[in-house]
Amino acid sequence: MLPVAIDAMGGDHAPGAIVEGAQRAAAELGVPVVLVGRPDAVESLRGDLELIPASEIIAMAADPGASVRRMKDSSLVRAAEAVRDGKAAAMVSAGNTGATMASALLRMGRIRGVARPAIATPIPVPGSTPTVLLDAGANAECQPAWLLQFAQMGAVFARERYGIATPRVGLLSIGEEPSKGNDLVKDAHVLLAAEGALASSGATFVGNVEGRDIMTDGVDVVVADGFTGNVVLKTLEGGMRTLVRAVFDALGPSEVAEPAIEALMPLYGVLDPDATGGAMLLGVDGVCIISHGSSSATAIVNATRVAAEMVETGLVDRLRTAVSVD
Amino acid sequence: MLPVAIDAMGGDHAPGAIVEGAQRAAAELGVPVVLVGRPDAVESLRGDLELIPASEIIAMAADPGASVRRMKDSSLVRAAEAVRDGKAAAMVSAGNTGATMASALLRMGRIRGVARPAIATPIPVPGSTPTVLLDAGANAECQPAWLLQFAQMGAVFARERYGIATPRVGLLSIGEEPSKGNDLVKDAHVLLAAEGALASSGATFVGNVEGRDIMTDGVDVVVADGFTGNVVLKTLEGGMRTLVRAVFDALGPSEVAEPAIEALMPLYGVLDPDATGGAMLLGVDGVCIISHGSSSATAIVNATRVAAEMVETGLVDRLRTAVSVD
Repeated sequence: MLPVAIDAMGGDHAPGAIVEGAQRAAAELGVPVVLVGRPDAVESLRGDLELIPASEIIAMAADPGASVRRMKDSSLVRAAEAVRDGKAAAMVSAGNTGATMASALLRMGRIRGVARPAIATPIPVPGSTPTVLLDAGANAECQPAWLLQFAQMGAVFARERYGIATPRVGLLSIGEEPSKGNDLVKDAHVLLAAEGALASSGATFVGNVEGRDIMTDGVDVVVADGFTGNVVLKTLEGGMRTLVRAVFDALGPSEVAEPAIEALMPLYGVLDPDATGGAMLLGVDGVCIISHGSSSATAIVNATRVAAEMVETGLVDRLRTAVSVD
Repeated sequence: MLPVAIDAMGGDHAPGAIVEGAQRAAAELGVPVVLVGRPDAVESLRGDLELIPASEIIAMAADPGASVRRMKDSSLVRAAEAVRDGKAAAMVSAGNTGATMASALLRMGRIRGVARPAIATPIPVPGSTPTVLLDAGANAECQPAWLLQFAQMGAVFARERYGIATPRVGLLSIGEEPSKGNDLVKDAHVLLAAEGALASSGATFVGNVEGRDIMTDGVDVVVADGFTGNVVLKTLEGGMRTLVRAVFDALGPSEVAEPAIEALMPLYGVLDPDATGGAMLLGVDGVCIISHGSSSATAIVNATRVAAEMVETGLVDRLRTAVSVD
């Protein structure tokens, strides 16, 4: 396998945690990796790992489009180019999400027929496989036909990533009836409910679902526009963080706390965003994993593992055949 | 004070739990209440409480608009009429949310200048006052100017309900920068950021907020269109329920569980939807509390208390002076 290109400069803890994660991925998983970044910043850390030099860094808060157009020697752009040029099998970045998308889109291009790539984010479900939420933020304004493609791509991803033979796809709305929702959702419902709409992706449309269904095992893929999807993702992140903190506060410095917290650790592990393996940009012509900004070395190990799995399973080719082309 | 009209027929546990709640509200709070519902169903339960007879019941899943137009002798319509006709000070229902809104809107009418009423739902924040989220589901499609009015009304409600002198109002988006979000949010941001936009409601606009800010004490009022708001509300409900269950499962039948659960009970109380006092329909010309469908007697007691408080504080008149009229 070609190496996984890891953006050494992206993320709150770059380059230290990222390079450490890359080294661990190579050692623990046996996945070939190549770093992309500034030689002066990475040289002393990289050990035996190969480096694709890139002199520029796109800041976490920089404007994505402008940065990617201007900073042609940035680690993000060079990582995407490495995939395009057949020097890497996939890219992983914990950097600026918008710039990661823009780099992948501009350098790898879209899969033929895909109107807009979407970010697929696994939402942990205690005791079950995660629910794949997409679009989790790539497209703030969407058209109904894009949501149909998100459903098709999300279903393929759920099968390849989690082994779900016939993924159940739900459309996020505010009531189960097809008549509930905003205009976008009502129009998308018609497309998704049409005979054969998800046949190419081997999925079942279960109709509208609500926010309360996301963290249950009642649905495998939840489709939304990128504004709603991103709001949901961050609402759950914030809500979980608040509640976990409140649980720890409530247990307090009592003799109850220590054994209770020990009993809760496996649950904490399920909810840990470092454990999910990152989000995936579906619809570009290559494997692109978007790890969250605060990624630890462990998050990078998991993201690299998922990247390698998605390369080996031929995800991009499977997406190519699943997407409706008008 | 005129009595609070309580829809005895609305809710999953009606009429039993509702009438019990009404009796407790009268006894424990000293708030005058009047039941509205079918005499045959309520007669044996109501004790000394007054009853406004209504022969019809709008089912939980019925189409709101059609039901309210057709079922003129339903408990919901009669409750709203009692407020309009000066026979009740406020209405409380745990029934069909859409039909509650439609009854209040058609019978009480809107406050002059209000384009669309909105549902304001308190989101519990451990260790702090709740965050008021609106619109939590009344309007699936919104215009930017409506979101400005939601902000003004939500700020007045946060002050009267929670005593927050200068409520901090945030616009729910997918990034802090004014340029982030969908078209609706970007346009609404301009209106909210304009000089004096919230002066009439004595509030401060803190800019865009994200989903992760809702369950924190960083913002008092979060404004969204009714589609996004309802998705957020249900996502939090589902996420909290999943996590609370997972915590109990993780603690399991161990000797750890009992004291830990005891330590967690106050937190559980904070998150209990029966404790919030229900959501409020802001913008109609009267006090209308929407209690959740699974309301217990305790939920009805709390909703009645809030209804009485909002009558005594003169909420509707305060909303009248706070709303921008074009």
